[in-house]
Amino acid sequence: MSPTSPETLEIKNRGIPAMLPSNNASNGYVDGDTNANNDIQPAPYGKAIATRLMEPNEKASTLGSFSNEDISLVLQTFRLLIADLCQQFNMGHPGGAIGMAAIGVALWKYVMRYAPHDPTWFNRDRFVLSNGHTCLFQYCNLYLNGYKAMTWEQLKSYHSERPDSLCPGHPEIEHEGIELTTGPLGQGIANAVGLAIAAKHLGATYNKPGFDVVSSHIWCMVGDACLQEGVGCEAFSYAGHLRLNNLTCIYDNNQITCDGSVDMTNTEDVNAKMAACGWDVVDVEDGANDVEAIVVALSKAKDPNREKPLFVNVRTIIGVGSVVAGKAVAHGVPFGSKDVAEMKKAYGWDPEQHFTIPDRVKQFYAESPTRAERYVNEWKNLLETYSKAHPQLASEFRDRVAGKISPDWEDYIPSSFPEGPTPTRKSNGLVFNPIIEHIQTFMVGTADLTPSVNLSYNNYLPFNPPSLQPTSGPVGSYKGRYLHYGIREHAMCAISNGLAAFNQTSEGQSIIPVTSSFFMFYIYCAAAVRMGALQHLQVIHVATHDSIGAGEDGPTHQPVELAALYRAMPNLLYIRPGDSEEVAGAWKVAIEYKKGPSIISTSRHAVPQLWNSAGGTSRQGVKMGAYVLKEVENADVTIIASGAELSFASNAAEYLLDKYRIRARTVSFPCQRIFENQERDYRRAVLRRHEGIPAVVIEPYTPNGWERYADASISMRTFGHSLPGKYIYQHFGFTTERMAGRISDFLGRWKTGDVDRGEFVDL
Amino acid sequence: MSPTSPETLEIKNRGIPAMLPSNNASNGYVDGDTNANNDIQPAPYGKAIATRLMEPNEKASTLGSFSNEDISLVLQTFRLLIADLCQQFNMGHPGGAIGMAAIGVALWKYVMRYAPHDPTWFNRDRFVLSNGHTCLFQYCNLYLNGYKAMTWEQLKSYHSERPDSLCPGHPEIEHEGIELTTGPLGQGIANAVGLAIAAKHLGATYNKPGFDVVSSHIWCMVGDACLQEGVGCEAFSYAGHLRLNNLTCIYDNNQITCDGSVDMTNTEDVNAKMAACGWDVVDVEDGANDVEAIVVALSKAKDPNREKPLFVNVRTIIGVGSVVAGKAVAHGVPFGSKDVAEMKKAYGWDPEQHFTIPDRVKQFYAESPTRAERYVNEWKNLLETYSKAHPQLASEFRDRVAGKISPDWEDYIPSSFPEGPTPTRKSNGLVFNPIIEHIQTFMVGTADLTPSVNLSYNNYLPFNPPSLQPTSGPVGSYKGRYLHYGIREHAMCAISNGLAAFNQTSEGQSIIPVTSSFFMFYIYCAAAVRMGALQHLQVIHVATHDSIGAGEDGPTHQPVELAALYRAMPNLLYIRPGDSEEVAGAWKVAIEYKKGPSIISTSRHAVPQLWNSAGGTSRQGVKMGAYVLKEVENADVTIIASGAELSFASNAAEYLLDKYRIRARTVSFPCQRIFENQERDYRRAVLRRHEGIPAVVIEPYTPNGWERYADASISMRTFGHSLPGKYIYQHFGFTTERMAGRISDFLGRWKTGDVDRGEFVDL
Repeated sequence: MSPTSPETLEIKNRGIPAMLPSNNASNGYVDGDTNANNDIQPAPYGKAIATRLMEPNEKASTLGSFSNEDISLVLQTFRLLIADLCQQFNMGHPGGAIGMAAIGVALWKYVMRYAPHDPTWFNRDRFVLSNGHTCLFQYCNLYLNGYKAMTWEQLKSYHSERPDSLCPGHPEIEHEGIELTTGPLGQGIANAVGLAIAAKHLGATYNKPGFDVVSSHIWCMVGDACLQEGVGCEAFSYAGHLRLNNLTCIYDNNQITCDGSVDMTNTEDVNAKMAACGWDVVDVEDGANDVEAIVVALSKAKDPNREKPLFVNVRTIIGVGSVVAGKAVAHGVPFGSKDVAEMKKAYGWDPEQHFTIPDRVKQFYAESPTRAERYVNEWKNLLETYSKAHPQLASEFRDRVAGKISPDWEDYIPSSFPEGPTPTRKSNGLVFNPIIEHIQTFMVGTADLTPSVNLSYNNYLPFNPPSLQPTSGPVGSYKGRYLHYGIREHAMCAISNGLAAFNQTSEGQSIIPVTSSFFMFYIYCAAAVRMGALQHLQVIHVATHDSIGAGEDGPTHQPVELAALYRAMPNLLYIRPGDSEEVAGAWKVAIEYKKGPSIISTSRHAVPQLWNSAGGTSRQGVKMGAYVLKEVENADVTIIASGAELSFASNAAEYLLDKYRIRARTVSFPCQRIFENQERDYRRAVLRRHEGIPAVVIEPYTPNGWERYADASISMRTFGHSLPGKYIYQHFGFTTERMAGRISDFLGRWKTGDVDRGEFVDL
Repeated sequence: MSPTSPETLEIKNRGIPAMLPSNNASNGYVDGDTNANNDIQPAPYGKAIATRLMEPNEKASTLGSFSNEDISLVLQTFRLLIADLCQQFNMGHPGGAIGMAAIGVALWKYVMRYAPHDPTWFNRDRFVLSNGHTCLFQYCNLYLNGYKAMTWEQLKSYHSERPDSLCPGHPEIEHEGIELTTGPLGQGIANAVGLAIAAKHLGATYNKPGFDVVSSHIWCMVGDACLQEGVGCEAFSYAGHLRLNNLTCIYDNNQITCDGSVDMTNTEDVNAKMAACGWDVVDVEDGANDVEAIVVALSKAKDPNREKPLFVNVRTIIGVGSVVAGKAVAHGVPFGSKDVAEMKKAYGWDPEQHFTIPDRVKQFYAESPTRAERYVNEWKNLLETYSKAHPQLASEFRDRVAGKISPDWEDYIPSSFPEGPTPTRKSNGLVFNPIIEHIQTFMVGTADLTPSVNLSYNNYLPFNPPSLQPTSGPVGSYKGRYLHYGIREHAMCAISNGLAAFNQTSEGQSIIPVTSSFFMFYIYCAAAVRMGALQHLQVIHVATHDSIGAGEDGPTHQPVELAALYRAMPNLLYIRPGDSEEVAGAWKVAIEYKKGPSIISTSRHAVPQLWNSAGGTSRQGVKMGAYVLKEVENADVTIIASGAELSFASNAAEYLLDKYRIRARTVSFPCQRIFENQERDYRRAVLRRHEGIPAVVIEPYTPNGWERYADASISMRTFGHSLPGKYIYQHFGFTTERMAGRISDFLGRWKTGDVDRGEFVDL
């Protein structure tokens, strides 16, 4: 079936609600400006801004050799393909993807630079689908443009029973042509900001006049949700500040979310807001159909004279062409076979035929692979001449492209440390600052806690636009590897996922991002940390002030329950090192662990250094997750501790012997996940519970999860309290005397059988 | 000491950096608009908007009987008091509070309506300090204005060793004059939006012409951080949409954060952004000193003709008067005794005297209590005449003020349910929709998942401004009790904390807020849920799609580790009911539990109803946290399950008996925290592990924490997978046959001693 008569090619926007507003500035408010206040005008609608970028009626000089009829046929094909795919198993999200059909044509056919035959080609443009539920939009474009893994059978496996489907309900990073896993809303745009920072930074570091070996542009689709989500708001704001002119955000402005029309819940002037955040703004009025207008708008993205990220506000119609066009129900429910048949009839197609791709449409997409080979070859040639002109730099660059980290990173870790009490957050600096200073692979950032997290290294250079001379600090440079994220924890972590995902090989990443904040505020960014874990992205999170020892800032700043989340999160290593030596071990583990994020969780306050005492700490021990700190003969009990309270175990053990003649062995336990992955023999040798020796864990967190390794805990069952550091442990009973007393009491009950083995006791 | 000579009263702004920008729109960018793009003007600076609200040089007609010299002395006193308080124990955050001195005078002396003698007076204005680290600002104002609990000794206990200090490091809700606990940045402004919604809603519901029995205005101080944090961005956007003209946000615009000048990290045009979000904007240029200008600006807040929330952008200088004025180091470190002495000298004060409050300053504040009594008495009189004019409504109103919920709420819970398989999210609707329909105390909202969470009740009315006629849905009303939060989970939960905190008595709250979303996305708002738990606020969170059963949406939407966080969080009840009957029990528990939030965690998919089978579920059982579903003689094993997988326990037990002759008893375990609070005898009777019967828990979450109650688990150690619901459980081995087989294998190992008691096994 190949509809050819002109009338069948006419776009019929069935069911478009006439009242859909095209300007959000004054959506829906029924009473006009009728009172004293009404001379206050809303900020001007973005269009005024937009038209300076784009002349009225400006069109792309050509859409190649294809006619408007060709384009219409392509749009019809795309929409019906999605309708059929959702109908197949009567599941899926059809409306958004269908509404974005024209955007897809503009991107994959006319604007974006990518290589289906070489999907991880280093200098490709990156595309992120922040509104991940419209995944069929991406899958169909991957198929049509010749990505090899996306076979016809694979495309049709969407929502099937195939566990090896390349078409999961949201795009997943593991699959060809997908840059990042998206779905949780707002994450994708922040990831895209990370990709743009990565491209800017690598370009600033390695490009030379005439040799733009890094020139990727980042394209990100967002829906209404990404504009509303806090993590999106943070990312937009930071990207505008950074003047990332290699980033284009395309807003699928269909004014519909699950609950109904967007103006039920959001009536911002989006364009004015984006302009206030430092973005250039362009409007496209008929984004459902006018491919040419979208191409013109998107082409502005690569204008080298532009200084800001570009926001393209594309008016679309969700489920365009269907009975539910423009309605919320088009979002997440298939249209039904009857309506799909009606769509086909209205287009002049045979309603009995499914999954049809006319030859003219195949022709339309035929050139993508050829064009891609040209892109890749041009880049390879460029790289070759660059290697001759700048051999040293090119060698470094090739290592970065290969994901290789300079092997001497380990040499920068000190072999010994100051002997006096040291906050483990300060130990972080002792261990990592020499590494970050010398090893270019790392980019480190903080959510406005530079003075607290000790990660600003010698001659550190902030990542900021070269056009920025802030009131404090040096003039900006994209060569900078220190990111002042502002008070935006969530975006910090989501952006770091983008930095990590920019280029990954079997060797590692071009960039290993490091984030930092108080541990408590990693609760703000848990969704992004999770996405990093899910995607096996290597991101190192430096969390300080990690216990009630945070002191006078009080319970709002004292984590007691958060470790339970991160210890439970798959693929993530939550590590609580106990002194400088264990901090060295934690960094070694985190840098060598390529399968996901790590959290290095450290203290605000100075803690005793145990590495130089008999039975001291060891960096090798950290690699095992837990290890015996001090073994004793005929032990009565094992005391487990970690992090800031590691010395409590040793102190309590000494006191128990002196005062109660109780023999306690001690175990340092920095990381549950690593320990869990050891052989049972090792685990038993460390814990010796199978010999009948009970274990007590000391940690001022809620004990959840420690029940696996211990029989009792000295822990927290409540939130903390505002008291200076020197009083807080005492307040909650974490003194040597009281801890030893509680352990002694417990052992008494244990011996009399009052406690049943398997019944965990909160002391 | 009382400095009187005019020259000593001159404000000396020592150390003010001359380059501090007053307009963020073009902060610091060194190269002007010099390229093709430069005809794009930034959106107009908010001042243009602001001056329409406020004439140039407009001043309050009077500051009462006090001269400029009096005001200057008050400001000096306030600043030095804070400097001395931080110096006392050489800890604390002086800079922000000192910079905001003039704002405090304007608020507590001239603008705000409150009652120190009756701090919880219902119709008071509410004040929220969103930049909570400046808590001394609030503590000093409470002291100076006569709050009784805030004695001189108490004020001086800031950062002391007193565990009963009323001056913790961040304001805490438990203390007189504090509306909400703040500190984690961005929470406070969202809380304030909640307070403003509460006041609007109660006013719309109970006010009658001539009887504005609810007329509280909400004042919220924010710093730069609250403007950057995502939760703040969400809250600003939603408040603008709602046109909350009873909300005023005062921006302490000192352009300094921990890392340095704000323009290192944020260069938005803040005023234009706020205007785009639907706020009126007013500027104050010299906010460090010009009390009169601040009073004029804040007085705009109560203009009844204004339709929008008001944003007052007050330029201040952090640590004004000190050597570190205008610098980041002024934020969180005391100035040092030398500099404090210098401050005093510069003001003409005796540098040897500390904690001085001149008599004229005491006089200045003397009238606050008298004025307060007048406010309260006027309101009481109004309430009396209102009671005569509208007796029925007034009676209802008095109950709401008393925090009493209509006792017939329980009557609306069905006594039985449909017998066929039902998704527990649908059971939520069966149980709660009749309650919300009839009981005014509840306000329910959703983060754009109305079609999924089943909480829109008969004739539900959205809370929206009466001036709004959205494209879909009814015209807005502040009487509405259904909040379309948009895709703003974090603000939803933080706003709900504000709704809950608006009025609390020993009986309960005037409003019990209910939120709803997918359980997975409660990871976005964990920081706000935590703040509710910390503050013992009754908020009910309805979380659906709570397991891998979410199906084809994939691992981004399938929680496996999140329950570990909420089970560990103090004061919070995380409840997973297993069928409609247990859903009824969960709601009863959540509505009766006044000491914190609850999460009712339910399934996307239909689950079997066990309540009408032998040994069925019971709502009373939920109240115990866990209970025996089916007891057996000579049991070999106990199978524990909860929620969507509760029936798996019964099915596995039957299969074990049939196939392996293994006798399994079953336990339904909807809530760990409730169970943990039961007597040991009850706990032992339910689990019977002390009798040597091992327990196996079935739950498709990571097992962390279950080790306390079980010896082995059939659980998840990885993230989920995108597969339709009917295939997903099978994919991860949760079939009856495979589960029974794993339990049988485990019991074999248990009997041979291969498993040590206390060694938890992941089957």
